[in-house]
Amino acid sequence: MRATTPPLSRRLDGLQSSAIRDLLKLTARADIISLAGGLPDAELMPRDRIAAAADAALSSRGVLQYTESPGWGPLREVLRTRESARTGRPVSIEEIFVTHGSQQALSLLAEVLLDPGALVIVEDPAYVGALQVFRAAGARIVAVPLDAEGMRVDVLRELLARGERPAFVHTVSNFHNPGGVTMSTARRRELAELADAHGFWVIEDDPYGELWFDAPAPAPVATYSPNVIRLSSASKILAPTLRVGWMIAPDRVCRAVELLKQGADLCGSALTQQIAADLLSDTEWLAAHIDSVRTRYGQRAHALVEAVRARFGDRIVTTDAAGGMFLWADFTDGTDTRALLPHALDAGVAYVPGSAFAVSTDYAHSMRLCFTTSDATVLTTAVDRLAAAHTAVSEGARAQAQL
Amino acid sequence: MRATTPPLSRRLDGLQSSAIRDLLKLTARADIISLAGGLPDAELMPRDRIAAAADAALSSRGVLQYTESPGWGPLREVLRTRESARTGRPVSIEEIFVTHGSQQALSLLAEVLLDPGALVIVEDPAYVGALQVFRAAGARIVAVPLDAEGMRVDVLRELLARGERPAFVHTVSNFHNPGGVTMSTARRRELAELADAHGFWVIEDDPYGELWFDAPAPAPVATYSPNVIRLSSASKILAPTLRVGWMIAPDRVCRAVELLKQGADLCGSALTQQIAADLLSDTEWLAAHIDSVRTRYGQRAHALVEAVRARFGDRIVTTDAAGGMFLWADFTDGTDTRALLPHALDAGVAYVPGSAFAVSTDYAHSMRLCFTTSDATVLTTAVDRLAAAHTAVSEGARAQAQL
Repeated sequence: MRATTPPLSRRLDGLQSSAIRDLLKLTARADIISLAGGLPDAELMPRDRIAAAADAALSSRGVLQYTESPGWGPLREVLRTRESARTGRPVSIEEIFVTHGSQQALSLLAEVLLDPGALVIVEDPAYVGALQVFRAAGARIVAVPLDAEGMRVDVLRELLARGERPAFVHTVSNFHNPGGVTMSTARRRELAELADAHGFWVIEDDPYGELWFDAPAPAPVATYSPNVIRLSSASKILAPTLRVGWMIAPDRVCRAVELLKQGADLCGSALTQQIAADLLSDTEWLAAHIDSVRTRYGQRAHALVEAVRARFGDRIVTTDAAGGMFLWADFTDGTDTRALLPHALDAGVAYVPGSAFAVSTDYAHSMRLCFTTSDATVLTTAVDRLAAAHTAVSEGARAQAQL
Repeated sequence: MRATTPPLSRRLDGLQSSAIRDLLKLTARADIISLAGGLPDAELMPRDRIAAAADAALSSRGVLQYTESPGWGPLREVLRTRESARTGRPVSIEEIFVTHGSQQALSLLAEVLLDPGALVIVEDPAYVGALQVFRAAGARIVAVPLDAEGMRVDVLRELLARGERPAFVHTVSNFHNPGGVTMSTARRRELAELADAHGFWVIEDDPYGELWFDAPAPAPVATYSPNVIRLSSASKILAPTLRVGWMIAPDRVCRAVELLKQGADLCGSALTQQIAADLLSDTEWLAAHIDSVRTRYGQRAHALVEAVRARFGDRIVTTDAAGGMFLWADFTDGTDTRALLPHALDAGVAYVPGSAFAVSTDYAHSMRLCFTTSDATVLTTAVDRLAAAHTAVSEGARAQAQL
């Protein structure tokens, strides 16, 4: 007898793999310089220090066992100290919750904060990992655009005045992925005031805050309101393999997340959490380590900006690359970045078209360029190739126009 | 201005922390011998081997980076080999999906396989980590009792004959938690036939299969039908800190789980997955290691059964303790295990009352006893204490009856 094949849930029908992941498969060719990825540079990760910490952690059998759902105690203590300094108030241990990367915080928070059909406000362009989760949770999504000072809080204010009532507003406050910009202090205060006045949550998603190049990022939005849930991560400053993210949130939010974490995966790894605790608590070493990452990324970012300016002049406007991992670039000459991409791949360079991050705007002339994993020479070659592809497409278009 | 506090999702209203977790907090007192836990013994975990594997893994920078959502390639290869041997058919790499412990497989499968209100059939008594996830997913839950041969497949057959159509049937096929029993080969075949005939999934949840004491567990249910999704884990044979579980499922199930895993937490830890790959691929060492764990657990299980028989005679009937981590014990004299518990705690011993695992039956006279973390002497003392508490309660009841 042939087996009858059982069905899958209908809720999968709307779900798709991220366009970026699909693109990354295309750009894995060895002859392509990829500015499309979003990975920190493994060469700059503190491998020896992690190995030493793993060895030290394994001198105790305690790290072999299941750990508590909110996280390994010593790590939560270290994070409490760090976050108290960061937000300028004494953060309690109950407000610290360790997640499997900050992506898990987003997915658990979507369950904790959203009723079906609830409104979520995101930035446009948006972090796609967040968009994917909020969409899967059945949220209604409204986008507020970014400008050079980050989220257009005036647009949010108008939405609220029209009666929109978000469950939460999601913002990547520092060195935005993909937008590159950082929210100004004035906007942070204004966003916090709106959250307090209207009673909505702000999810301040901050994996890049410590990767500043010229000046430290402003004080977190969480400094200004108890309604802000702050997320950060060890992935960009130490290593993604630790799978250590963290959330700073009111006790009742943490306890609700704890209930869901038990069902989701019971708990994290005491081993990788102890490694993270070891490295994050060695403040002198950590400061020097982050400083060296910051210096290298800063050099690469500036090299990329310089190369784009040298090759494209005023045909491309880019963000300043003041920190983080990404440059956002807009063609001013009407170039369609989706149409350009196959030519760029032919020329040996990859990027992510702006449309991959678009919510309400199409960002047809924009692209995200990641500068973390190539040095200055390679980045310059990448821009040369991009310019060659752009010239070929432009000349092709002119030739066609003359026919 | 005082901040207006935002609400949490209404879907949290029905969720509760597991009764067992709450009980475990009560039993953490140093003077209590706890048979209530469900942890493998950290003393038997291969700490030195894990430390060596961590060191070797960290000789490559590849393990520092994000890894693929379905899992670290070398681990999936090792699991493919293991599972091909276990199920007696060539398992392809696309059918192997690594999860953050098998709890994550349960939670992702609940999303992949269940539409709201779908029917899920579980065993009674049930594994509470599974129940919690299926309830949170909004499933309608119907229980089929266990007996000495595992799930009463005849009761399942009756439910199907009455027109019930489950999305899936969940079974802990080997050395059941909490029931202690193992499904017979005849029932495995029959369950597989029903799945094929009626087109439902079977989730064969198998974390304990290798922890047999007298004879190996029967061939997996997955041997008999392509509709079986098999789950297993490194937590009970190596160490929970690795957070390595795995799923063997048809490609389309794995691809659906992959989509959801991206949103849930992006990916697992390449470091802990490489450690697992290293240890699981060293088959000679692994066989000896598991054998030693098996021997120690077997000695403890037999000591516990002996002590219960010696102290309680025919007032308690227990399972055989043929493997796994738990003994299921039924009082035959009408003792209510919830009423007994405070007296047992006073006497310095803890267990989990059967009611904590109950779905349709109340299991008022049953309890789960975990034998993994105490040696024979301690287990005997624990049973002495339990007997003292039982005697005190029985005499109190008789005295009251005479008033």
